[in-house]
Amino acid sequence: MPTIDLNADMGEGFGPWPMGDDAALLTLVTSANVACGAHAGDPVTMLATARAAAAHGVALGAHPGFPDLQGFGRRELRMAPDEVHASVLAQVGALQAVARAAGTKVGHVKPHGALYNMAARDDALADAIAHAVRDADPALVLVGLAGSVLVTAGARAGLRVAHEGFADRRYRADGTLVPRTAPHALIDDVDAAVAQAVALARGEGVVADDGTHVAVRCDTLCLHGDGAHAVAFARAIRGALDAAGIAVAPFVVPGIAPRGA
Amino acid sequence: MPTIDLNADMGEGFGPWPMGDDAALLTLVTSANVACGAHAGDPVTMLATARAAAAHGVALGAHPGFPDLQGFGRRELRMAPDEVHASVLAQVGALQAVARAAGTKVGHVKPHGALYNMAARDDALADAIAHAVRDADPALVLVGLAGSVLVTAGARAGLRVAHEGFADRRYRADGTLVPRTAPHALIDDVDAAVAQAVALARGEGVVADDGTHVAVRCDTLCLHGDGAHAVAFARAIRGALDAAGIAVAPFVVPGIAPRGA
Amino acid sequence: MPTIDLNADMGEGFGPWPMGDDAALLTLVTSANVACGAHAGDPVTMLATARAAAAHGVALGAHPGFPDLQGFGRRELRMAPDEVHASVLAQVGALQAVARAAGTKVGHVKPHGALYNMAARDDALADAIAHAVRDADPALVLVGLAGSVLVTAGARAGLRVAHEGFADRRYRADGTLVPRTAPHALIDDVDAAVAQAVALARGEGVVADDGTHVAVRCDTLCLHGDGAHAVAFARAIRGALDAAGIAVAPFVVPGIAPRGA
Amino acid sequence: MPTIDLNADMGEGFGPWPMGDDAALLTLVTSANVACGAHAGDPVTMLATARAAAAHGVALGAHPGFPDLQGFGRRELRMAPDEVHASVLAQVGALQAVARAAGTKVGHVKPHGALYNMAARDDALADAIAHAVRDADPALVLVGLAGSVLVTAGARAGLRVAHEGFADRRYRADGTLVPRTAPHALIDDVDAAVAQAVALARGEGVVADDGTHVAVRCDTLCLHGDGAHAVAFARAIRGALDAAGIAVAPFVVPGIAPRGA
Repeated sequence: MPTIDLNADMGEGFGPWPMGDDAALLTLVTSANVACGAHAGDPVTMLATARAAAAHGVALGAHPGFPDLQGFGRRELRMAPDEVHASVLAQVGALQAVARAAGTKVGHVKPHGALYNMAARDDALADAIAHAVRDADPALVLVGLAGSVLVTAGARAGLRVAHEGFADRRYRADGTLVPRTAPHALIDDVDAAVAQAVALARGEGVVADDGTHVAVRCDTLCLHGDGAHAVAFARAIRGALDAAGIAVAPFVVPGIAPRGA
Repeated sequence: MPTIDLNADMGEGFGPWPMGDDAALLTLVTSANVACGAHAGDPVTMLATARAAAAHGVALGAHPGFPDLQGFGRRELRMAPDEVHASVLAQVGALQAVARAAGTKVGHVKPHGALYNMAARDDALADAIAHAVRDADPALVLVGLAGSVLVTAGARAGLRVAHEGFADRRYRADGTLVPRTAPHALIDDVDAAVAQAVALARGEGVVADDGTHVAVRCDTLCLHGDGAHAVAFARAIRGALDAAGIAVAPFVVPGIAPRGA
Repeated sequence: MPTIDLNADMGEGFGPWPMGDDAALLTLVTSANVACGAHAGDPVTMLATARAAAAHGVALGAHPGFPDLQGFGRRELRMAPDEVHASVLAQVGALQAVARAAGTKVGHVKPHGALYNMAARDDALADAIAHAVRDADPALVLVGLAGSVLVTAGARAGLRVAHEGFADRRYRADGTLVPRTAPHALIDDVDAAVAQAVALARGEGVVADDGTHVAVRCDTLCLHGDGAHAVAFARAIRGALDAAGIAVAPFVVPGIAPRGA
Repeated sequence: MPTIDLNADMGEGFGPWPMGDDAALLTLVTSANVACGAHAGDPVTMLATARAAAAHGVALGAHPGFPDLQGFGRRELRMAPDEVHASVLAQVGALQAVARAAGTKVGHVKPHGALYNMAARDDALADAIAHAVRDADPALVLVGLAGSVLVTAGARAGLRVAHEGFADRRYRADGTLVPRTAPHALIDDVDAAVAQAVALARGEGVVADDGTHVAVRCDTLCLHGDGAHAVAFARAIRGALDAAGIAVAPFVVPGIAPRGA
């Protein structure tokens, strides 16, 4: 029976400003990636989100980003590898302590935004992140873009890794994502996105934007929480996976310890 | 044989801006309180300071403060207790992960600046800090102003606590410090400060500003690292303690585990 | 014919996080107080808000607050008067340049949150703000709580001042507001709030929480933009003022120059 | 008689952290570029620096940078042009108000660090900065790397511009600077740097790193304020210019109004 994890970014408000519908998403996903204070996520929000994830039995992960609140970590920032290493370490550590207060445990790390994208193609940055994750806790699972430099760096560092796929992003023939700047970057049609999600979950890969077929390993699918139709979209994907007989389960057992790879 | 710990605040630079002479202080103290990013201390500085402390065999502690870089955590900020709890938790956690990367371990927590002073007299704030420390790691030692509400809160939370004394601050008859705003707050004379340090280390208490004698429990003495004569001052105190046959030793064994109280 | 200004705080988002329904409020108010980057309001938001105010013919004001994004400027921060002076100066100046790019002009200044409340009762803080406003532009109007220390400080500094009243806050017999911590601080009933707005606009004062009548000078009424029913509430007040034959007009002519007091 | 301006970056401390020897530099330079709060420079520091510049008769300029305190504005940050426009506008405006409080006036703008370097080669970024400067005050002079895209953008926006040269940086044959990452980027020898300063001030250009001669227009020379020998270095350059009969004078009359180009 095929198994897939569903993850979503959460706790991405800051101070007086909320973001996304975390409550709804927690009923749909199996893994939550929680912002750690750099691109979003003040400590009160972090703790509330960790508690909510624990209450829903959702696996908790850290979602470190560039220290750029104003740009929400979506702008490229040329940090040196040692700066990225220390920053990710501190962010993951902050959530680890918060998790203990919430009676749970951080089981995975998925970088955010520009850090995620840059680390998908830059070895030095990817190694810096992988080493930070290993330094924080060698049992952590590192989540990165399927087939990217980041997951390779994680494996090289001795970490277990999870390859991430996207239901609503179009792929290129080489397995990378069509950049958001391209007009056809997003799959707006719900049925098409649902079909891609099911195919990814079954290990069947995707059809690239040039019509060729691409193999994409997918351990976890990303669901989005902000945007007008995000939750409805997430619900449709979850429903289709259930209907297709695909088990939806976290790659890390929530709050206990990572399961064997 | 009387034993005393010497502590100093460290890693209080930020980005391009250094502060204090940490290298010199690390040869004199037995415990280092490292800033955690809120009032000072970016991740790169945190990691470098943790590594330096480990290399000198100095016990590592967290030094959480108010999230106010501009005011260096010295301005009172009316955070709610749950905000203080979550903030201290995240700061301590960040240093805990950093410590693991440095091959050491956080053994104690000493709040900084206005947070330290407010928690010395405000029960709700003190409890919030104590609970954060316990949530981060119940083996941590909480350091607070000798005889203050903060150490009481630490004990109430089940934590081991360390009472802190000051060589260069004048005391009032009730055992509190003469506020910095008073002209006689500081002891500028090196000999007088050294004498007060030795008396505190011997458990003899101090002479208050009204001439009466005050009992002050003192498990650890604070040495300052910034200011023109800080290091010379620290060296004089360390020398006098050694000469008086007082053992200078950390209340927590560095990088291993807290020693039994 | 009685005249009243209606003001609202705006541009209080930050980076990816919006706040309030500025577009709706701009159709109802005559003065906009725009956040300046300290408690909220990044530069892009400031410029967009200034342009929107100009497009609606709404008078533009600066809304400086404490440098505390996480606490949204609502937490008391013990800044020294010279720190408040410099901070308000820089915040107002930032919006003045932004206003020029938007083809408009800053005509008034209304402090935000905890800064507003502390300056209503602290002379040194109030003077610091008044001097900053005068230094930025002596033609600016300073808006403060009706009858408070802040408006007195403004007048003492030679500034024109505007006394602010609240439709939905209960007053005490001495003309101060019932603190938000009290259960009866807010007037939840729309009809009661509308009645208080009309009475304030007519110069009739209010009924205090002990039943006595209090004279309250009111040059401008504050409308809130966030909260579930804020806009409906604002619409009801605006409608009632129009129906009562009260002219709603800015105390500063938008984008041109302040009108004579 | 040849005339040259000498400029230095100032006010680059933040909160408790000072930087550089501004007091010494103010006796040597004719133009001061003051940090505006984004990469350095809290409001209190901004005001103190503006006052000091005014007291020394040194022309005041704004020194806007990327909003990245931790990286001191030296790390590339991929802000969109509209974000750069709004950010520079707000930073310049903040200093303009501060200058009024100091009894002086901002006469020029020189971007800082990575923003300066990126704008030297990126048209869209350069235009964003030039438009912000013009929006803040069309009489401002825009300072950029000699011959760069930034000064071209300034001229295109109708601004007066100043071409900046460096005494202690080596040039390439195309008139650009040897990148700091190259081993021969800096001229460490005082005599060589002084000779380059005098040649630049006389309009004689420089010898590039391949031995060819390059024409470099130089309206202003940059003196550095931090580093062990910075002030001695600056003093040597100033002395050599005086000895060579080169007039050292600001390109903007301090505190009054820009002089005609």
